[in-house]
Amino acid sequence: MTGVSGGSPSGVAREPARTGGDAPSFREMWRDLAPIGRNATSGGYRRYAWTGADGECRDWFRAQAEGRGLAYEVDGNGNQWAWLGDPARGGAVVTGSHLDSVPDGGAYDGPLGVVSAFAALDELRASGRIPDRPLGVVNFGDEEGARFGLACVGSRLTAGRLTRAEAHELRDADGVSLPRAMEAAGLDPDALGPDPERLARIAAFVELHVEQGRALDHTGDPVGIASAIWPHGRWRFDFRGEANHAGTTLLADRRDPMLGYAETVLAARREAELAGALATFGKVAVEPNGVNAIPSLVRGWLDSRAPDQATLDTVVGAVERAAREHGARHGLDVDVVRESATPVVEFGHALRDEIGRILSAGAGLFGEAPGPARTAPGARSVPVLPTGAGHDAGILSGTVPTAMLFVRNPTGVSHSPAEHAAEADCLTGARALTEVLWGLTRGQDLT
Amino acid sequence: MTGVSGGSPSGVAREPARTGGDAPSFREMWRDLAPIGRNATSGGYRRYAWTGADGECRDWFRAQAEGRGLAYEVDGNGNQWAWLGDPARGGAVVTGSHLDSVPDGGAYDGPLGVVSAFAALDELRASGRIPDRPLGVVNFGDEEGARFGLACVGSRLTAGRLTRAEAHELRDADGVSLPRAMEAAGLDPDALGPDPERLARIAAFVELHVEQGRALDHTGDPVGIASAIWPHGRWRFDFRGEANHAGTTLLADRRDPMLGYAETVLAARREAELAGALATFGKVAVEPNGVNAIPSLVRGWLDSRAPDQATLDTVVGAVERAAREHGARHGLDVDVVRESATPVVEFGHALRDEIGRILSAGAGLFGEAPGPARTAPGARSVPVLPTGAGHDAGILSGTVPTAMLFVRNPTGVSHSPAEHAAEADCLTGARALTEVLWGLTRGQDLT
Repeated sequence: MTGVSGGSPSGVAREPARTGGDAPSFREMWRDLAPIGRNATSGGYRRYAWTGADGECRDWFRAQAEGRGLAYEVDGNGNQWAWLGDPARGGAVVTGSHLDSVPDGGAYDGPLGVVSAFAALDELRASGRIPDRPLGVVNFGDEEGARFGLACVGSRLTAGRLTRAEAHELRDADGVSLPRAMEAAGLDPDALGPDPERLARIAAFVELHVEQGRALDHTGDPVGIASAIWPHGRWRFDFRGEANHAGTTLLADRRDPMLGYAETVLAARREAELAGALATFGKVAVEPNGVNAIPSLVRGWLDSRAPDQATLDTVVGAVERAAREHGARHGLDVDVVRESATPVVEFGHALRDEIGRILSAGAGLFGEAPGPARTAPGARSVPVLPTGAGHDAGILSGTVPTAMLFVRNPTGVSHSPAEHAAEADCLTGARALTEVLWGLTRGQDLT
Repeated sequence: MTGVSGGSPSGVAREPARTGGDAPSFREMWRDLAPIGRNATSGGYRRYAWTGADGECRDWFRAQAEGRGLAYEVDGNGNQWAWLGDPARGGAVVTGSHLDSVPDGGAYDGPLGVVSAFAALDELRASGRIPDRPLGVVNFGDEEGARFGLACVGSRLTAGRLTRAEAHELRDADGVSLPRAMEAAGLDPDALGPDPERLARIAAFVELHVEQGRALDHTGDPVGIASAIWPHGRWRFDFRGEANHAGTTLLADRRDPMLGYAETVLAARREAELAGALATFGKVAVEPNGVNAIPSLVRGWLDSRAPDQATLDTVVGAVERAAREHGARHGLDVDVVRESATPVVEFGHALRDEIGRILSAGAGLFGEAPGPARTAPGARSVPVLPTGAGHDAGILSGTVPTAMLFVRNPTGVSHSPAEHAAEADCLTGARALTEVLWGLTRGQDLT
């Protein structure tokens, strides 16, 4: 197939689905992206911002835009845009996501939103539906933060939530600064900064994303709508002890920071369980990291998220207390530094409800799940669910009316080579996005 | 001072101590070595085998040998030798240690034995004592194993406890093989291999080393004699779970290998305490090691040592059981691989007793510790103590009569920039070594 074929939304007369001319199909786009930055050993993706693999993804985006005759541009923060209609008219509807990845990430996180955006645009054109409003597709730069340690750099800069000076301080593990990395990728780091005029032209931003949990799998729906992004943050725990010989130092004479770290890892799990929150130590750095050396320093990073700020504060406070208590018992110095914190994002109810209405009206298209309750179109609304993951949509939501669509993830696995979504669900997601974009570009007032 | 001045051993008529001509003093040798390979930030040493810093240490050794008119040679395994008298005569007495370091190691571990060896030789000459037997000073290559992961490579090869083929398989963290590294340092890797003729010429090997615990500090003695090296080994624990997004994966859906690792770190400490042994996790590697990623793999290395093999087996067995039990609870696959194992080394009683007699006879020289019991020479024997650390002396002990002297370490800190020994104790150690060498080179039968 070419484009995404789908049924007609109820009440909208239009041509039957047909191919989108020269536009490559969803499957073709997917196949083109599949090998870029894929590690042969792990099977995961290593598309880090401003590296060669990221550049290949960006070349692909540009070719997709130009192949469709869309107006292509790169903004001062390195985000790529493709426009159907003139964005200077204002009131634009924008969709898209990102193409970079975490270390050994999956194929869907990011690319599914970009590929679905082009596929939806193809489908609108193929079915003869020309939007009243400018319609944009965006690829935000450096969403995952895998290289420079800060997520959503492109959207943060655009929204004025990261300054040029702060961005210029970012460095990767090899000491390469963000400005040097962007220069090497052919961009001008002096152009970084807030872009309020661009955002003022956008009436609605909708990001489609693979779900990163199993909520839709549990409800039996292929597509859902985001309600909120949990408050979340990163804290660095430094346990400092005394380097010493592992083969000669009596246990009683040791100040072993690995013990304080291990106690804290287990405390984080316990506290998260008690509070119904999430807490993870996924990254650790040890000095000197020798087999026969008691470490001088163990540095662990806590990622924690919770349904509300009070719960998050409770969990992190309890983990920090546990670290200090166990640290004192083992003779360690313990430092805890908050490296980032993002408050709760509640997506605006007006846009969310409008999207819910559009999708419920076409429920026969998007809710093919088994069960008698799903056979009557509109009989059941599309599920609305929160997520613990940050997104560019979360960053923009403070400035622009923003919403997210999720596509079912049957295993819930994310940030892993094993991340997966069924092709049928991906195509349903693109079809849902098509109808949402069509509904929104016809709407008079999106606020 | 030049050389190491000291009193006369009881019953030995000789000239009073005088300077050793052109030979640099203990302090001068120490000062020359101090800056080589020292990291300005940590203050620790990074003298890894066959690197530039190691080469500078080896140049220093050669200059010390040639400056004293000693016969200098490098054997096929990269060990450096300096000879007073012709080793081909056989029955040689050899002393020395190593000059390489662990990552951010201290100044004493290794160099104290080499500097003391030259200082003792200077003192013998300065006092007009010419040994009956050939007297050698050795610097064994790659003792710490910091670069290629295997300790005592130079002595293992020489003693036939590591084959050329095995050595050729060794690689550093950058993938550089041992043969390429030795070639780059100007050596011929095809010459690696056992050297039984060389070892057959040695009647006794004595290694002086800074103590790596606080036993001598507890007994109040500046110098002690090694009884044994505890059996010890390294085990790699692989905890395999499922990479996933730290912000979206429910706790109940996780297979987080960091939890299994943390439980095992604490179990190792408990089991070692119960058994009176040592167990340490000092090195860990995490994949993908991202702040917002549940790891797919946590790999930790256990270093364990115990007074006897049965105790060591008990401890490691219990830690492995704990790893498997906790791993199963968290849905992990657990693999345990023994990477190295060294049985107990009991230093020969004949040589150890002979050294004890020599030092007890000169107890007024070596036991300046406070307390009335120490004032009568010979009234108390020099302490004999085990160690948990491996040494070239341990490797050679299976082939050559071997002994070790330890110099007091007031803090017990080892494998750390904070490693320290008082200068007075170092000079006492060198003086003790002088008398031991003099006593042994006069002995008829050392076996």
